[in-house]
Amino acid sequence: MMTSSPRDPTELEPSYALQDTLGIRMTEWSRDFARVEAEFTDLLKNRQGLLHGGIHALLLDTAMGYAGCYTGIAGQQQNALTLSMTVNFVGQLRGKRLIATGRRTGGGRKVYFAEAEVRDDTGGLLANATGVFRYRSGPLVDGRP
Amino acid sequence: MMTSSPRDPTELEPSYALQDTLGIRMTEWSRDFARVEAEFTDLLKNRQGLLHGGIHALLLDTAMGYAGCYTGIAGQQQNALTLSMTVNFVGQLRGKRLIATGRRTGGGRKVYFAEAEVRDDTGGLLANATGVFRYRSGPLVDGRP
Amino acid sequence: MMTSSPRDPTELEPSYALQDTLGIRMTEWSRDFARVEAEFTDLLKNRQGLLHGGIHALLLDTAMGYAGCYTGIAGQQQNALTLSMTVNFVGQLRGKRLIATGRRTGGGRKVYFAEAEVRDDTGGLLANATGVFRYRSGPLVDGRP
Amino acid sequence: MMTSSPRDPTELEPSYALQDTLGIRMTEWSRDFARVEAEFTDLLKNRQGLLHGGIHALLLDTAMGYAGCYTGIAGQQQNALTLSMTVNFVGQLRGKRLIATGRRTGGGRKVYFAEAEVRDDTGGLLANATGVFRYRSGPLVDGRP
Repeated sequence: MMTSSPRDPTELEPSYALQDTLGIRMTEWSRDFARVEAEFTDLLKNRQGLLHGGIHALLLDTAMGYAGCYTGIAGQQQNALTLSMTVNFVGQLRGKRLIATGRRTGGGRKVYFAEAEVRDDTGGLLANATGVFRYRSGPLVDGRP
Repeated sequence: MMTSSPRDPTELEPSYALQDTLGIRMTEWSRDFARVEAEFTDLLKNRQGLLHGGIHALLLDTAMGYAGCYTGIAGQQQNALTLSMTVNFVGQLRGKRLIATGRRTGGGRKVYFAEAEVRDDTGGLLANATGVFRYRSGPLVDGRP
Repeated sequence: MMTSSPRDPTELEPSYALQDTLGIRMTEWSRDFARVEAEFTDLLKNRQGLLHGGIHALLLDTAMGYAGCYTGIAGQQQNALTLSMTVNFVGQLRGKRLIATGRRTGGGRKVYFAEAEVRDDTGGLLANATGVFRYRSGPLVDGRP
Repeated sequence: MMTSSPRDPTELEPSYALQDTLGIRMTEWSRDFARVEAEFTDLLKNRQGLLHGGIHALLLDTAMGYAGCYTGIAGQQQNALTLSMTVNFVGQLRGKRLIATGRRTGGGRKVYFAEAEVRDDTGGLLANATGVFRYRSGPLVDGRP
């Protein structure tokens, strides 16, 4: 039997190598919403020693992607492809932890829209994003391709 | 003495941990232009087994960032912050290698605009991007912060 | 003497020809916020008879531009230039009136970030936007260039 | 009988009220390409007396929309909706005429990608854009809705 909102989203879906390597972990997942988090380690720095803009983008894309693909059923994976994503780099990191939250904001069965923001553990806004996503055609698949 | 266009951009600037971990390497750098490349390994895959959209974004941001910050002098680092970046995910990967090229398209001493695209080694367009960047104030610094 | 939050923003700044022609009117203006509205008339339609995407963009850009430039003092005009703007077209118009609200979300004295949305009078979300803006250098000017 | 590339695109499709009012006219249209032009008149100015950012956006959206919807057959109208559009405002207007060109860059039967730029008659780049568009479902219609 299935709990409708499990405490640990990894019950629903395991992490993958890129997430493991970068220290990214999904910490909340529900209909139209997802949260992913990471410690700010040296690995995530750019050539200036600051959080790499590509990491903001990766966290925001991940959060928006999950937000539109929640099924609540382990092994029943809904997939989507990002069509377009815009990231605005609003503020500088002051904390030690990155928290990205994504929300599905509209759309239908073929295309959806989402927004996301990444804050640090002091609450400061680092970046926000909007995106458009396309659901992959075909039936839901039981596991990874 | 300095060659004005060294064959190996790593003569001008060493790679950093995130690049090393993900297998990203700058392969060309000149005024208003940069190219970065990576092998498509399992590490760069998303939950669907496809190239992660955040990796497209990371490569594109990196190429556009370098493109606007070329000085041609080893140790004299020009820095910029991304203000905004938009990525369009145009096509699917068919090859084994990712090649991102970035170009500075306009702007002045405080802000610059850039565009970039990432193709695979078959020549197929995977994604393109535009971005706005702000030069960091202060003098050029001899090395990393 | 000046009221700090006048009921009618046109006390602070008159409309201009493009606004008058398209029927666009600013209806609220305060620090970091602005609202502009328009009737949905035939003039605002595209070749399909739907609200033209350029009009969504124009309303959103206008609302974000005003949101970052409030001074509260008639004749003391703060100016900004849009550096980049992204518009997502989330939903279809069902009502008869367009209401765009813009908010400044961050930045400093040289650059600011904003977000905006346009809804119709049924409350339905038509489009949202984010943008990056640069304040124009030079002192505030008493009137239009 | 039909010419495959008529000199005057208005043979293929008449202008609409918004275009007529703002002085916008399509001047070239072929597979995956469109050009629209306008005189820079006072009507297109913002509160600062500069070309309104919403007009850049309107021209760019129009050019990208047409670029993906060419059928070459008068009265056989292909329609699309903009999903997302990003505009970068790269340079200032120096000339008297606005020329926007749009190109379809990828996609398939349901979604397409496009890019566009608007230059003035001195050749200076004013703004560029990328966008994602969705073809409207249903058969082609003989005329406007």
